[in-house]
Amino acid sequence: MKKKEIKIAIDLMGNDIPPIDLLNACVLEEKKKLPGVSFVFIGTKELQNIAIKAKANFILAKHTIFLDDNPLTALKKKKDSSIAIGMKLLKEAQVDAFVSAGNTGAIMTSAKMNLSMLPFISRPSLLALLPTEKKTLTVLDVGANISAKSKYLFENALIGIAFQKAIGNKYPKLGLLNIGSEEQKGTVEQKKVFEELKKLSLKTKFFNFVGNIEPKEVFQSDIDVLITDGFTGNIFLKTAEGIANFILNRLRQCGDRCDSIRPYFSDLQKYLHYEQYPGALLTGVNKIVIKCHSYSSFNLISIFYNQPI
Amino acid sequence: MKKKEIKIAIDLMGNDIPPIDLLNACVLEEKKKLPGVSFVFIGTKELQNIAIKAKANFILAKHTIFLDDNPLTALKKKKDSSIAIGMKLLKEAQVDAFVSAGNTGAIMTSAKMNLSMLPFISRPSLLALLPTEKKTLTVLDVGANISAKSKYLFENALIGIAFQKAIGNKYPKLGLLNIGSEEQKGTVEQKKVFEELKKLSLKTKFFNFVGNIEPKEVFQSDIDVLITDGFTGNIFLKTAEGIANFILNRLRQCGDRCDSIRPYFSDLQKYLHYEQYPGALLTGVNKIVIKCHSYSSFNLISIFYNQPI
Repeated sequence: MKKKEIKIAIDLMGNDIPPIDLLNACVLEEKKKLPGVSFVFIGTKELQNIAIKAKANFILAKHTIFLDDNPLTALKKKKDSSIAIGMKLLKEAQVDAFVSAGNTGAIMTSAKMNLSMLPFISRPSLLALLPTEKKTLTVLDVGANISAKSKYLFENALIGIAFQKAIGNKYPKLGLLNIGSEEQKGTVEQKKVFEELKKLSLKTKFFNFVGNIEPKEVFQSDIDVLITDGFTGNIFLKTAEGIANFILNRLRQCGDRCDSIRPYFSDLQKYLHYEQYPGALLTGVNKIVIKCHSYSSFNLISIFYNQPI
Repeated sequence: MKKKEIKIAIDLMGNDIPPIDLLNACVLEEKKKLPGVSFVFIGTKELQNIAIKAKANFILAKHTIFLDDNPLTALKKKKDSSIAIGMKLLKEAQVDAFVSAGNTGAIMTSAKMNLSMLPFISRPSLLALLPTEKKTLTVLDVGANISAKSKYLFENALIGIAFQKAIGNKYPKLGLLNIGSEEQKGTVEQKKVFEELKKLSLKTKFFNFVGNIEPKEVFQSDIDVLITDGFTGNIFLKTAEGIANFILNRLRQCGDRCDSIRPYFSDLQKYLHYEQYPGALLTGVNKIVIKCHSYSSFNLISIFYNQPI
């Protein structure tokens, strides 16, 4: 079946990658690897000539929202930021998706201001795919909404279930990230959502709620969806990344000597390295927004392209 | 200088290790490795004869508080639990320290009920030592108090500074575990404690507050103390453990082939494996209580013995 032509707006600004490198990499990859996909780049003035030279679609942004800007203040003051422009393009259906590695809070707030929310969902969440020993795990929220209220944890569960159903999993297994596997563990909010999910799963048989799961069990477990709040999920993901980096750096240091054991670690990078899961889907809104790490590599685009979203 | 004779109460009950194995290991190690240390074992009836046979000091407990028991209910109903007895021995100065791998909530609650709190500290915290690339990091709270209120985060900072000063560090570097390094990151409570710590460090010059630190930076950083709440700290530690286990299992699988590269990973176990940091100090109370993982090995005792606490 022929893939529908898709148009993606790319925010070049406000992250740790030099905008020119990002532009060049995307232009190159667009031609090479992604038939049926076209990009619209959003960047500030200094990028305009380079983009024109490269025959890239380019939209001029007057402002950049930086990683350390306060999201609300920045969105108010910097009306023509690359994030605001990207979200407007999406709202007006001029593009099919918007990809940014910029300020998470600004992306989330701008999405909430411009796009419609899905039914029963009050705040956007970030959904990431994390390969574990047994499967690719859907984790949310990994950093959009730092409130740990049971209401939002419940919404995250609904989105996680919907995502799994959309990719063909009829009876997804859900776990709640917690500091112990016992039922009474965690905060008041977690105990509350534990009860709600237990009831709903028994009543609807729509999903399988396996209860609380500790971080050290996640990588060996067979759950499909891991539910957490945006603060805890971000800590979980970044701790995993930190250690993965540490290990992979060690492997690089030992050069040829490691050749014989590389097969034992070939899946390590896949399991743990952030470059393999650079993009998170901003869920809860009715359009496709991808938030990438501020230190993402080009992989973000091709991974997005190959995901069933 | 001769070490003072110390008497340690060991809780044999309520964890994942068979009590008999724990008893045997401790009796063996006591004779072999720890001159000047004597143990008092607390366990239920079925262990009494074995303890007498091994010529171990033994105190009979009528009840066991299990890992999935509700702490408050269990302490009320099981008045003669091994945890309650250990804490009583400590309160009455019959022992110098109490070591348990049992129910964290029950240990914390029982400590708060029986022991005095230190000045300015309202709730106990768990302090763990975590080796990173550059130094041994003091992390707290790793699981005692799951409330993330700024008040408790501030108390954790005070304890962390005091601990570092006690081991000879005159100007400890403090970091606040957060989802970004920028000043305005995190919850309202974190922003509040950020301001308080910044002010106090500038005013007193008693410690160096380096601000927020992301989990992925912790292992390369040179901070001495990492401040967090008991929920987040526990997630951080258990994620690190989960991945460390995963990696170390891979290394074991490759047998002889890995010999040539083992030097590159010799510090890995030290850095990341939980058996190397099995005990956490319950701080904030005026006596020594060590909480071990429910899956600790015997190492817990000897590590405790060698720590400067």
